Amino acid sequence: MHHRTPDRSSADSSGRPPASGPAPTRRGLLGAAATTGVAGLAVGGAGSTLARTALTADSGPALTTLGSTAHSFHGTHQPGITTPVQAHGHLAAFDLAPGADRRLAAGLLRRWSATAEDLMAGRPTTEDTGVARDAGPSSLTVTFGFGYSFFDATGLAEDRPDALAPLPAFSADTLDARRSEGDLWVQIGADDALVAFHALRALQRAAGDAASVRWQMTGFNRTPGATARPMTTRNLMGQVDGTNNLKESDEDFAGRVFVPDGGEPSWMAGGSYAVVRRIRMLLDDWEELDLTSQERVIGRRKADGAPLTGGEETTPLELDATGPDGRPVIPANAHARITAPEANGGAAMLRRSFSYHDGFRDDGAPDAGLLFVCWQADPRRGFVPVQRKLDRGDALSAFIRHEASGLFAVPGGPRPGEYVGQRLIEGR
Amino acid sequence: MHHRTPDRSSADSSGRPPASGPAPTRRGLLGAAATTGVAGLAVGGAGSTLARTALTADSGPALTTLGSTAHSFHGTHQPGITTPVQAHGHLAAFDLAPGADRRLAAGLLRRWSATAEDLMAGRPTTEDTGVARDAGPSSLTVTFGFGYSFFDATGLAEDRPDALAPLPAFSADTLDARRSEGDLWVQIGADDALVAFHALRALQRAAGDAASVRWQMTGFNRTPGATARPMTTRNLMGQVDGTNNLKESDEDFAGRVFVPDGGEPSWMAGGSYAVVRRIRMLLDDWEELDLTSQERVIGRRKADGAPLTGGEETTPLELDATGPDGRPVIPANAHARITAPEANGGAAMLRRSFSYHDGFRDDGAPDAGLLFVCWQADPRRGFVPVQRKLDRGDALSAFIRHEASGLFAVPGGPRPGEYVGQRLIEGR
Repeated sequence: MHHRTPDRSSADSSGRPPASGPAPTRRGLLGAAATTGVAGLAVGGAGSTLARTALTADSGPALTTLGSTAHSFHGTHQPGITTPVQAHGHLAAFDLAPGADRRLAAGLLRRWSATAEDLMAGRPTTEDTGVARDAGPSSLTVTFGFGYSFFDATGLAEDRPDALAPLPAFSADTLDARRSEGDLWVQIGADDALVAFHALRALQRAAGDAASVRWQMTGFNRTPGATARPMTTRNLMGQVDGTNNLKESDEDFAGRVFVPDGGEPSWMAGGSYAVVRRIRMLLDDWEELDLTSQERVIGRRKADGAPLTGGEETTPLELDATGPDGRPVIPANAHARITAPEANGGAAMLRRSFSYHDGFRDDGAPDAGLLFVCWQADPRRGFVPVQRKLDRGDALSAFIRHEASGLFAVPGGPRPGEYVGQRLIEGR
Repeated sequence: MHHRTPDRSSADSSGRPPASGPAPTRRGLLGAAATTGVAGLAVGGAGSTLARTALTADSGPALTTLGSTAHSFHGTHQPGITTPVQAHGHLAAFDLAPGADRRLAAGLLRRWSATAEDLMAGRPTTEDTGVARDAGPSSLTVTFGFGYSFFDATGLAEDRPDALAPLPAFSADTLDARRSEGDLWVQIGADDALVAFHALRALQRAAGDAASVRWQMTGFNRTPGATARPMTTRNLMGQVDGTNNLKESDEDFAGRVFVPDGGEPSWMAGGSYAVVRRIRMLLDDWEELDLTSQERVIGRRKADGAPLTGGEETTPLELDATGPDGRPVIPANAHARITAPEANGGAAMLRRSFSYHDGFRDDGAPDAGLLFVCWQADPRRGFVPVQRKLDRGDALSAFIRHEASGLFAVPGGPRPGEYVGQRLIEGR
């Protein structure tokens, strides 16, 4: 599934001294490694990455695989679903041009697929702007999905999955239609910001007149190496976020996340459904709470994410435990209780989100929160039932606003020579 | 100047197995290193960083100093000027509350200084929100400056430096006053996005009612490790950008960048002036040019930044060289010619910029470009004469728009126990 990184910069690895530049030591080490032929190598099974790095005898330390890690565009599933979440992300929806048809969509998806394949392999693409030149692929992934309206626009309404039915309205929604849904969805992730920008711009250029950007959001996660211990990430409320997330080692992981072979519709085999929610955090209100109050809202300790019933981050919640006052230690409306899989009839989804911060609002509060992305074989057995429960009784609801929403059918990964969605576009 | 990174996470480095998480191998290595007591160590002279990392015998590779690198808040100069530019940046201007006076400003700067000192050392600060918890300082720097209007607002007009006189208008300016200038300026840089966000939010909270955000911009540069060879960064036009930048090894570097002891006003000794320009790139127009045309606009080769007169990136420009047609090889209006120090009577400045991308404009073009920041002992012998020349004849002008501007007096670094700007606020 994965392959050795093409050495796009080999022609330049002449060992000449650093030019000017702010971090000669750091870059010098990397440069020296490149010169001696050491390269990062990413290997692993579908969707998992095991990064390995070799060291030369005297190069000392600090050779990172950050730039050289590559993921394959081809495979049973598209990349960017089980791929480790990257430090930089772009989510964008595109609308097809008026009068678009299946043929136009086919051309668009063919160009997009070629672009994504080039860039994910660390190669320049057609009419490359050069922004990512000298960088490695930096774990770039590009993922494509179809929105509800795509099928009407292209005359493919008969092929629209039932699972793509519009999400129900939730009482706490304050959705902005202009930043919601869309004919096509693109998710970009990379560990370098210029690589991520470059990919977004390349896809916009490759769209030409066939499609235009409907909305676009930029997000981020920790830079690899910023934390010294393995841990789940924190969100902009400072909470450990994602502890109970699905893991590939979980029973029936694939069945919960991916449409099986023989599933309906057939063109979605190996695919998944992405629910995207822009969730603004009301940080002024949240930060007014004292630590104990914050922990009761979440049901976990802020310091390490352990349940209020004790243990460490991964210790199961003791939902039945009561305190000296006879009341539940994890409050009835605690976020962790309501989202616990055992409290949701097994409804589960793979969350893979980015934080966002788009400056400050007129009232001085940060326009910041979570670009929530979750993946499931069917949103009616994943996001929808969980969100229904959260909508009714989650203590966290008072501190967040769902401001945009999208639901997209993300087909399986293309085989070499295929373009993304070809089985939909040409399959009948 | 620099110091060993406090091990904020030591209490958690218990060697327990990774929880869930997307990149166990990468983080596992870091975790193992932390457990065995290996820590990044940043040492160096004023403003320079030499990152060193020790390796344990069996830990193999890939221990990065990214998270653990710390810069000192104290010193002759403030951090964030000669510090290697980071992967994430925030620029923000604050305006003092109506009715502010010197006393209110003193309290604000005292709180801000304490906050910056804590966070740069990797310690939680007062009423810490927890967002950066578990992360190292990740090369965080916080830099403070005073705008022209600060001195009127605080009754300190007599202490305002002559060098802080408003920049002249340039013919190509299309400045947005709401995103320009301001009483106070804060520059934040870090190699981790959550660390940078956390610092910005902490400073906003520490401001309390004394000052509010006037404008804020977010920028980025390459993630350390994304490129395999040492090189100057690229901008969003894909150009190698910053080749001829001042280097600390240059003759009279300090004299060009910093106000000397005995300079005027005395409270600015060790300080510098920052010019900030939000420069949007007209990427749709730029990318329509073919490679040769782009290279003639810049005067350098796109691939490696070498002058059109040959050599490699750092080779001096041969400004007098002519081609077979008798015309200059580096066109008369090429950006590299016009900005060449030898063509500007020695006017020079230290550039330290971030790229930015704030989504897409209504016409579909990226709202993207450069958060240009330059540093000099006196803008009247730095930015102003160079920009005057660019304004008249730079071929690049057709492809960029200066949309916001700020000029700030950045005092010298505080001594331990001092707050930033104390010599101004209390010095008379």
